[in-house]
Amino acid sequence: MDQVCHTSEDQLIKKLTADLVTMPEILTGVGDDCAVIEKDEHHHTLLKTDTIVEFIHFTPQEDPERVGWKAAARVVSDFAAMGGEPEALMVTIILPPDTPTDWVVKLYNGLKAVARKFRCSIVGGETSSTLLGSPKVISISGTGSVEPHNLILRSGGRATDLIYVTGTLGGSIRGKHLDFTPRVTEGQWLAKHFKPTSMMDISDGVAKDLPRLAASSKCGFEIYSSKLPLHHNCTPEEALTDGEDYELIFSIPEECKDELEIRWAKKFKDLKLTNIGKFTEKEQDSLTGGWDHFQD
Amino acid sequence: MDQVCHTSEDQLIKKLTADLVTMPEILTGVGDDCAVIEKDEHHHTLLKTDTIVEFIHFTPQEDPERVGWKAAARVVSDFAAMGGEPEALMVTIILPPDTPTDWVVKLYNGLKAVARKFRCSIVGGETSSTLLGSPKVISISGTGSVEPHNLILRSGGRATDLIYVTGTLGGSIRGKHLDFTPRVTEGQWLAKHFKPTSMMDISDGVAKDLPRLAASSKCGFEIYSSKLPLHHNCTPEEALTDGEDYELIFSIPEECKDELEIRWAKKFKDLKLTNIGKFTEKEQDSLTGGWDHFQD
Repeated sequence: MDQVCHTSEDQLIKKLTADLVTMPEILTGVGDDCAVIEKDEHHHTLLKTDTIVEFIHFTPQEDPERVGWKAAARVVSDFAAMGGEPEALMVTIILPPDTPTDWVVKLYNGLKAVARKFRCSIVGGETSSTLLGSPKVISISGTGSVEPHNLILRSGGRATDLIYVTGTLGGSIRGKHLDFTPRVTEGQWLAKHFKPTSMMDISDGVAKDLPRLAASSKCGFEIYSSKLPLHHNCTPEEALTDGEDYELIFSIPEECKDELEIRWAKKFKDLKLTNIGKFTEKEQDSLTGGWDHFQD
Repeated sequence: MDQVCHTSEDQLIKKLTADLVTMPEILTGVGDDCAVIEKDEHHHTLLKTDTIVEFIHFTPQEDPERVGWKAAARVVSDFAAMGGEPEALMVTIILPPDTPTDWVVKLYNGLKAVARKFRCSIVGGETSSTLLGSPKVISISGTGSVEPHNLILRSGGRATDLIYVTGTLGGSIRGKHLDFTPRVTEGQWLAKHFKPTSMMDISDGVAKDLPRLAASSKCGFEIYSSKLPLHHNCTPEEALTDGEDYELIFSIPEECKDELEIRWAKKFKDLKLTNIGKFTEKEQDSLTGGWDHFQD
């Protein structure tokens, strides 16, 4: 019998959500970093849920405070990817009965640190028990807010737009995946001053996420692998495939290049911004986008 | 070492959320059926998350479509308990790798049935794998909406207010816990026409949930156990303790009694409404509320 392990997550979600009916106020449902609900002329509500599982997203030995940070910061990063900011978070934790209470208290300290830093509220949630020996699960859901004219989707990129990434890529497994800073300030600044044509955050690595961004924008792409901003001692391959960078990847029209780079360097002195490629016309017969340039 | 199995969920949540800081737009955070976010003069946003775990909330043999219905309907019931209605739902499913794809498709059919019936949208979510042999987990988060003047909290009950429940109580384990109808229409009608002083839905049984409602309202209570509306063949004890009724329990001022009962009987011919007790002055030295009347 067909089992979920034989299907990619993208394929499964596509199958499950094929015939979803959504109400008119839902501007964007499945398929972007967040869902978007139309509220009024000043605000859209953003909706996101994200889950981390012990043994898969963190080890049993990991500092629970860092695990809490990661769990909440992943969701905040998705609000950043739409040009928005977080508003309210709900925390679901599913724990085997032998979990030390102290572990949960420390986990919450990490969650609260995210809420403090990004000025959002933890408004509820629940704890549920699971069977002894099952992995701990932390699931964070929340709402964010974005001004309608600052909303950035994945779908607006056009051929010839330049593709940029913030920060450096790769090496997340050496610790960065637990301590990253969601790019809320940067995402809002970009949305306000340059309105990227498309944007998302890099959770699975550029090699997986850029094809998603390009597909949403109905574009192909080219990457200049020699220009990838490498995290300490990383190879270009690691920068493309390690994942969990939680940097922003976005596209802007070619003519904005100089102004963007000059103003970014003034505003965000300590954070790189790198043009790593560009969108191209979509080639119908290419399954892989524009990886031709990967080996340059 | 202190473990979570030694602590009640209420105690643990109290410990974790004691020092939460929330932003001014959060009208109600932890401690009611939903969190409430102030939006504008026409709407508040309601926020809720709820999780069911295989072996705890449903058996492996259970029809996955009914499991899906239950998972989503529990959240919808919480929106009903505030006088509101559901808006958008996000679906997180955590599955061991040997889960049949067909099981997930059927689960989604149950989720979609709830969305259709209550005119809300499934807007996203995620699937995550867990270790082989771990229970399946379905976590539903969502937003609802309520007009500010129709918002009903748990905290407004006053001594002498009458306590009512909708429907019948008990026996959920014989199937009702998978097929119940969230009382959205009824909750909205009550909020609009009678504005209950306090309201919640019954998920853990009257014996656990009424003390919570009373505590939020800083009241004591009396129950007339002979008047409990018993589900088929249930004893009063089962009606009080089985839980998973997903009926509404609410309080209204004594002087509304006649009008409420007459208008309810006209409007909701097929659904009982029963006055099961009343709020009293809180007795500081009583730990158990007003269970004196349980044995009458």
